[in-house]
Amino acid sequence: MILEMLDTITEMLQNREFHNLRSLLTEYEAADIALLFAEVPTESLGLLFRLLHKEDAAEVFVYLDTDLQQALLQTFSDAELEEVFDELFVDDTVDIIEEMPANVVKRILDSADPEKRAQINKILKYPKYSAGSLMTTEFVELKTHMTCEDVLKSIKRSGVKKETIYDCYVTDASRHLIGVLSVKDLLLAEEETDTVESLMLTEPISVGVLDEEEAVASTLKKYGFMALPVVDNENRLVGIITYDDAMDVLEESSSEDMEMMAAITPTDKPYLKNTVWETWKNRIPWLLILMLSSTFTSKILQHFEDALVQCAALTAFIPMLMGTGGNAGGQVSVTVIRGLSLGEIRMGDVLRILWKELRVALMAGGTLAIVNFCKMLAFDNVTMLVAAVVSVTVFSVVVLAKLVGGLMPILAKRLGCDPAVMANPFITTIVDVMSLLVYFGMAKMLLGL
Amino acid sequence: MILEMLDTITEMLQNREFHNLRSLLTEYEAADIALLFAEVPTESLGLLFRLLHKEDAAEVFVYLDTDLQQALLQTFSDAELEEVFDELFVDDTVDIIEEMPANVVKRILDSADPEKRAQINKILKYPKYSAGSLMTTEFVELKTHMTCEDVLKSIKRSGVKKETIYDCYVTDASRHLIGVLSVKDLLLAEEETDTVESLMLTEPISVGVLDEEEAVASTLKKYGFMALPVVDNENRLVGIITYDDAMDVLEESSSEDMEMMAAITPTDKPYLKNTVWETWKNRIPWLLILMLSSTFTSKILQHFEDALVQCAALTAFIPMLMGTGGNAGGQVSVTVIRGLSLGEIRMGDVLRILWKELRVALMAGGTLAIVNFCKMLAFDNVTMLVAAVVSVTVFSVVVLAKLVGGLMPILAKRLGCDPAVMANPFITTIVDVMSLLVYFGMAKMLLGL
Repeated sequence: MILEMLDTITEMLQNREFHNLRSLLTEYEAADIALLFAEVPTESLGLLFRLLHKEDAAEVFVYLDTDLQQALLQTFSDAELEEVFDELFVDDTVDIIEEMPANVVKRILDSADPEKRAQINKILKYPKYSAGSLMTTEFVELKTHMTCEDVLKSIKRSGVKKETIYDCYVTDASRHLIGVLSVKDLLLAEEETDTVESLMLTEPISVGVLDEEEAVASTLKKYGFMALPVVDNENRLVGIITYDDAMDVLEESSSEDMEMMAAITPTDKPYLKNTVWETWKNRIPWLLILMLSSTFTSKILQHFEDALVQCAALTAFIPMLMGTGGNAGGQVSVTVIRGLSLGEIRMGDVLRILWKELRVALMAGGTLAIVNFCKMLAFDNVTMLVAAVVSVTVFSVVVLAKLVGGLMPILAKRLGCDPAVMANPFITTIVDVMSLLVYFGMAKMLLGL
Repeated sequence: MILEMLDTITEMLQNREFHNLRSLLTEYEAADIALLFAEVPTESLGLLFRLLHKEDAAEVFVYLDTDLQQALLQTFSDAELEEVFDELFVDDTVDIIEEMPANVVKRILDSADPEKRAQINKILKYPKYSAGSLMTTEFVELKTHMTCEDVLKSIKRSGVKKETIYDCYVTDASRHLIGVLSVKDLLLAEEETDTVESLMLTEPISVGVLDEEEAVASTLKKYGFMALPVVDNENRLVGIITYDDAMDVLEESSSEDMEMMAAITPTDKPYLKNTVWETWKNRIPWLLILMLSSTFTSKILQHFEDALVQCAALTAFIPMLMGTGGNAGGQVSVTVIRGLSLGEIRMGDVLRILWKELRVALMAGGTLAIVNFCKMLAFDNVTMLVAAVVSVTVFSVVVLAKLVGGLMPILAKRLGCDPAVMANPFITTIVDVMSLLVYFGMAKMLLGL
């Protein structure tokens, strides 16, 4: 790994062995060099960056964190800035621009040639998280009358500036998307005189420029495509989305789901890059809401204060009941949330899910109730009646929790919210209230409190 | 969407309009046709499948769920079976074989030609979840002396049977991996007489055949490669892993993390495919463990029974304290688990994490304690001293929970366990115990119970 070289590299920098350092760096991938950049002192950044070969430099730049990019940009002359951005793909340029302060954005836009500037501005105008803002405008566009030979020549001429050359898109005179031709089919074609029209696949799968990026990434994944064409509402080709960007979107979307499930406001930044203040800000609202919502449980317990004083043994099992309910409900809600997010569960499946969860809940509730009953009699020094109250409550709470856990995410989705919000913490709060009501109901019935 | 066509297609099947149906089906992608297959009655499956064009049929087959594949295989003659599997890539064949009962496996292996059977057996012998079991052996292999023209000819001859032709791998006489050449570089090369040696990138990134599939998929994603070569321990090229398979692995790995975080034993099967029995089996052990571990909280509450009888108001806030502790700890643990799993957090970052979480915890604990204090005085009808006991406990519990939540996943990783096990439910159990001890400690100090 390159980080094991950190000491050597720092030493070479200090001894000004620039030539050796330069050839050492060429042995590493851009993604690895970016890791190295995150570890060296900021004042060496500019020097180290200038040692990279021109093409490598731009690629390394893309992999850097926003703060390092900004630090480097400040050291760049206008000529250097132009050199780096000239090598970048349009979609990477846009990603960088979106994170930079206005004065840096201006410098970047000023350095771009008019055509590229137009492309950048086009992508910038699409809403965040839309296909338009994720796509690149650098793709290979073909016309039906071209022969294999024409296509290969065209790729040779312009391919180096394209994000991918392997899927080429065929458009008519008004730029409507009419077909797709892979380089594989091109290379396997019988004759150099075969035309695009005879080789292309017609009616290609495409996505709309305003579609949500998560849906687009799922579509790409579903079909296993290397790239997906993006069209406007008149089916004119405006860009493509490539598999590597789709992978990033899918991973971010999983992270967001996890964060929401854990009652955290999602953020794009890696954990260690968030300041203490930002981390606090992402977490405190949910903690506050959940804390305040437990007023319900407090009120219930206050209401039954006399009962608890009469039979103090009951208090000892409140945490267990609430915990078990929360865990049982959390299991279902996370399963349903993930299923919805991967498209494995559709909205029409509600009844199937509830019917299934009801049966699982009866089995799980029964198992837990029996184990709990035996355990309480053997170890907890309580009467059989108290053990019965607790165990019947365990059973009821598990069944209720599983149904609530299954229903809430689906309800959230139907109401247009993100189902992930309805995960463990919220289910727990609802289940807590239900557990206590069932518990005291049972106690009233069986113990006559 | 194809599912909107379900009625039309069922009708066409009943009216035996096979010719029209066949041409209708050609308009759809294999992934969509597979969705359709999951909805038609089982007895029509064989008929519908035979209407597909030969190449499409194999691709649709790969997308089907295991139970449908098995149902179809039973209707196949040996010739039909051979026809389908002849079109499949080796890695897809292996994936199918791994899920089938022994007698079906035998039929599939018997139908394969000796060379393919050897490849299948080679992949089958690698452990599950290793790079070896994920890879395919169908890649383009080049030698250094070949010219661009040779390579293009070679691709034309054998490319149709390769999983990808876009990254080609260069080996020496003993099949050691020495370089990689992309078709892009090949097509952009100046001369048809340029050799592979002059165009290839040397010292390519590769993974070991026994590496874990998740690590391999992360490597591919990190570099944005389309495929990653897999080598044995002597650096001989044995296979490649393509981006689409890596995407599947990463998604499954996120699902597994989420399931473990919710105290569910992970499973490969989609939710609705699991039987009630399987779902119960994946969930009950954790519910049992967590239920039984709450014996600790019961014992503590029993121990302080007298104190609770003396000051019954304290009971009402136990659920709020435990809930807040669990939520605060869960936020940190999920953040750290995800960070570890994405490689954003490394084991060396422990101190940075704890220092950061300590500061966040002090801020969050302070906010919650103040809000709680005001809320209790305003709405809960308690003395200022009780409000103080509860609020100081809130503060301590949040701080402790955040530190435990940050530390436990890292500890799990250091012990060689999956950090995801240390998520919300486990943290909650630990935090519950701590909350009660702090609570009664405070009550003793401030209320003199």
